[in-house]
Amino acid sequence: MTGSTDKGSSRRRFLGNVAGALGGAMVTEAQIAVAATAPRQEPGRGLVAGRVEPFFGTHQAGIATPMQSHLYFAVFDIVTDQRGAVEALLRRWTEASAWLTAGRPLENEASADQIPLDSAEAEGLEPARLTLTFGFGPGLFVKDGVDRFGLAAQRPAALVDMPKFNGDQLIVERTGGDLCVQACADHPQVAMHAARHLARIGAGVVQLRWVQAGFSADNPHKKGETARNLMGFKDGTVNPDPRDAAGMAQHVWVGEDGGWMKGVAYLVARPIRIAIERWDRMKLGFQEQVVGRHKASGAPLGGVHEFEPARLDAIDADGNYIIPENSHIRLAAAETNGGARIFRRAYSYDNGLAHIAERWPPWRQGLLMDAGLMFLAWQRDPRSGFIPVFENMAKFDMMNQFVTHVGSGLFACPPGAQPGGFIGDTLFARLILPN
Amino acid sequence: MTGSTDKGSSRRRFLGNVAGALGGAMVTEAQIAVAATAPRQEPGRGLVAGRVEPFFGTHQAGIATPMQSHLYFAVFDIVTDQRGAVEALLRRWTEASAWLTAGRPLENEASADQIPLDSAEAEGLEPARLTLTFGFGPGLFVKDGVDRFGLAAQRPAALVDMPKFNGDQLIVERTGGDLCVQACADHPQVAMHAARHLARIGAGVVQLRWVQAGFSADNPHKKGETARNLMGFKDGTVNPDPRDAAGMAQHVWVGEDGGWMKGVAYLVARPIRIAIERWDRMKLGFQEQVVGRHKASGAPLGGVHEFEPARLDAIDADGNYIIPENSHIRLAAAETNGGARIFRRAYSYDNGLAHIAERWPPWRQGLLMDAGLMFLAWQRDPRSGFIPVFENMAKFDMMNQFVTHVGSGLFACPPGAQPGGFIGDTLFARLILPN
Repeated sequence: MTGSTDKGSSRRRFLGNVAGALGGAMVTEAQIAVAATAPRQEPGRGLVAGRVEPFFGTHQAGIATPMQSHLYFAVFDIVTDQRGAVEALLRRWTEASAWLTAGRPLENEASADQIPLDSAEAEGLEPARLTLTFGFGPGLFVKDGVDRFGLAAQRPAALVDMPKFNGDQLIVERTGGDLCVQACADHPQVAMHAARHLARIGAGVVQLRWVQAGFSADNPHKKGETARNLMGFKDGTVNPDPRDAAGMAQHVWVGEDGGWMKGVAYLVARPIRIAIERWDRMKLGFQEQVVGRHKASGAPLGGVHEFEPARLDAIDADGNYIIPENSHIRLAAAETNGGARIFRRAYSYDNGLAHIAERWPPWRQGLLMDAGLMFLAWQRDPRSGFIPVFENMAKFDMMNQFVTHVGSGLFACPPGAQPGGFIGDTLFARLILPN
Repeated sequence: MTGSTDKGSSRRRFLGNVAGALGGAMVTEAQIAVAATAPRQEPGRGLVAGRVEPFFGTHQAGIATPMQSHLYFAVFDIVTDQRGAVEALLRRWTEASAWLTAGRPLENEASADQIPLDSAEAEGLEPARLTLTFGFGPGLFVKDGVDRFGLAAQRPAALVDMPKFNGDQLIVERTGGDLCVQACADHPQVAMHAARHLARIGAGVVQLRWVQAGFSADNPHKKGETARNLMGFKDGTVNPDPRDAAGMAQHVWVGEDGGWMKGVAYLVARPIRIAIERWDRMKLGFQEQVVGRHKASGAPLGGVHEFEPARLDAIDADGNYIIPENSHIRLAAAETNGGARIFRRAYSYDNGLAHIAERWPPWRQGLLMDAGLMFLAWQRDPRSGFIPVFENMAKFDMMNQFVTHVGSGLFACPPGAQPGGFIGDTLFARLILPN
């Protein structure tokens, strides 16, 4: 492998900066090796026009971005007490993300005596519209009552401790976390490779806490159709249109009043198990009553076309609502929730089999498919978004017979980075005290 | 939904046949509902030319078939003692497979009062080259010493009880099984949907025992390149070419001497965990010594091009083998194993995180990525294929520091079915005693 003098010097310069930021004592061999990542000099290598989602921008990519086919969602605990180490990691994650999303592998050293910078399993694959979207959990600001990094005063009021919802069966190992990254791509190995790389360069600073891979039923040959979830229903018909900037500003992005949070979006991340075997034994009419939509067409009950508005006030000859009172779409509807809307980007997941006890009669227990929906929903304030909407649904939604929230995380996803900046710089720039 | 008289009568006729075969007492409501599956009458609906792999044939599809991008491997225990129920299930699985692989959803009943035949999450997706490949484990013939189904005399000698290999850390819940199906497709939801459906119509006859989903690093835009596994190396360079009929007959398919087994291929299925975090800390030169290949090019050590033959006898200036004695490719090579070759069709898997204790110093324990390779290898006789090859590798392969076999299954995959026949009919046709 040939390297120009420029490349060598820029790599050394970068390494020097990172080593300085980290402080000598805490720099491990692996961190140095990875920090030494430098851009490839061959212009355009690995780049395929049209399959790259830009990493830098006003907002982070991966929120308003059209959904990719695969997800790898990773949540980390911060295991250092050094704020400088966290900041340095965010800088490295930013730089790595810019290269990964461009489809350029992180450069491998030529020498057999060095640890490769890139694990290489995505070598030869294309950018696959990879996006990497970072979020800050409450633990970045305050953990167990301790202001670990001098950030407590910057904790957004909207980054609440999530209430306990009716029916929640949260597993500790799938709940919480200080930092998260949503990796999405049109190839599963591209998404996993990116998350693996980010975890690796975080060694000593963060530790993986929980992860969830997922996939969508998106038809690559019929883009634009609403994908079906593992209940067999179209899922996302009334999702806000991410191309509607005004709607996104109203529901998703924190506005001018947000201080460092301007441009933040709050992410609720919940793996929701679906009792597939049980659902499959339900009659079609009952399934449709539960959801409030026709299974084949996706139309709201009483309607014909998927995208026609749900007529929540329509009644049948007996005076009953055609879309039942406890149906999923009625309880989720903006009309039912004072106009509150959340923006979802959900993926189906499959975790194989697990010994599971069902929540509802006949309380079947056994080796069942451990599959469901990785629910990812963004909003400008969960206190007026997910929390009130789901509080109501958690109590009354007929679908609760078949779905169980088994994990939960709430994250403030900071604004997008600009070239030269880094993810979270609006937060860290507000800190004037050394740590 | 409109139904012609022909459709109605053929569905009733099929239902009658199945109910008769099952015997009245053991037919559950769900079984009847699913058995009532009938072909759609609309010709070509859901069919997309070029993305269908034919289900019927001399050999089962999914073995010599060019690899699809996604796997869902499912293993079942038989929970009935009725041979007729097993045979009836194989008939129903055959019929369902023909429809599923053609990309036509199993027909849903129009009536809201009926349980849908199809869970519908693959509705609107394309055939995605779905293949469904069935295998018979030793337990179909003899279980715990009992000849459950009068099939003991038909157990092939090659369908051995697998020996314990050095280093095996087999988890009971990922080992063994009486029946298996390998679902492969170019869309994860198509593969999972098929396995879910087959499990569902097996209710009362079989119970899922273990499953493993997987994906390949196949680049959909550069077909024909060798995919990389999660160690970042090209995997499968010297795999026999499935288009080479003579080679497949020599290594994979049981020949004329096989009795009912003519056309059988024996499948070794093993989830192999890779210690990813540990591997990623190894120097490039060491990784290449372990594998015996260059990481970037895939060429054997000492070579330049991926597909050039490995020069196992080449030595360096010090008289040492250039491809080390304990390297993976030397120990796996046909030359090292008396010409024995196995035909692999392996997928990477990702099961999230798990608390794992590593096998080798420094015996790291912790929450690590639970990922690896779902090893699927076919051969005409495991006694001259996988078993002797792996016995040697299990003892000496340097890669064992990084890979652990955590599950295992051995299955006789019967010949392909012909229209009107069913998977396993050459076995069941040899039985003359009623059960």
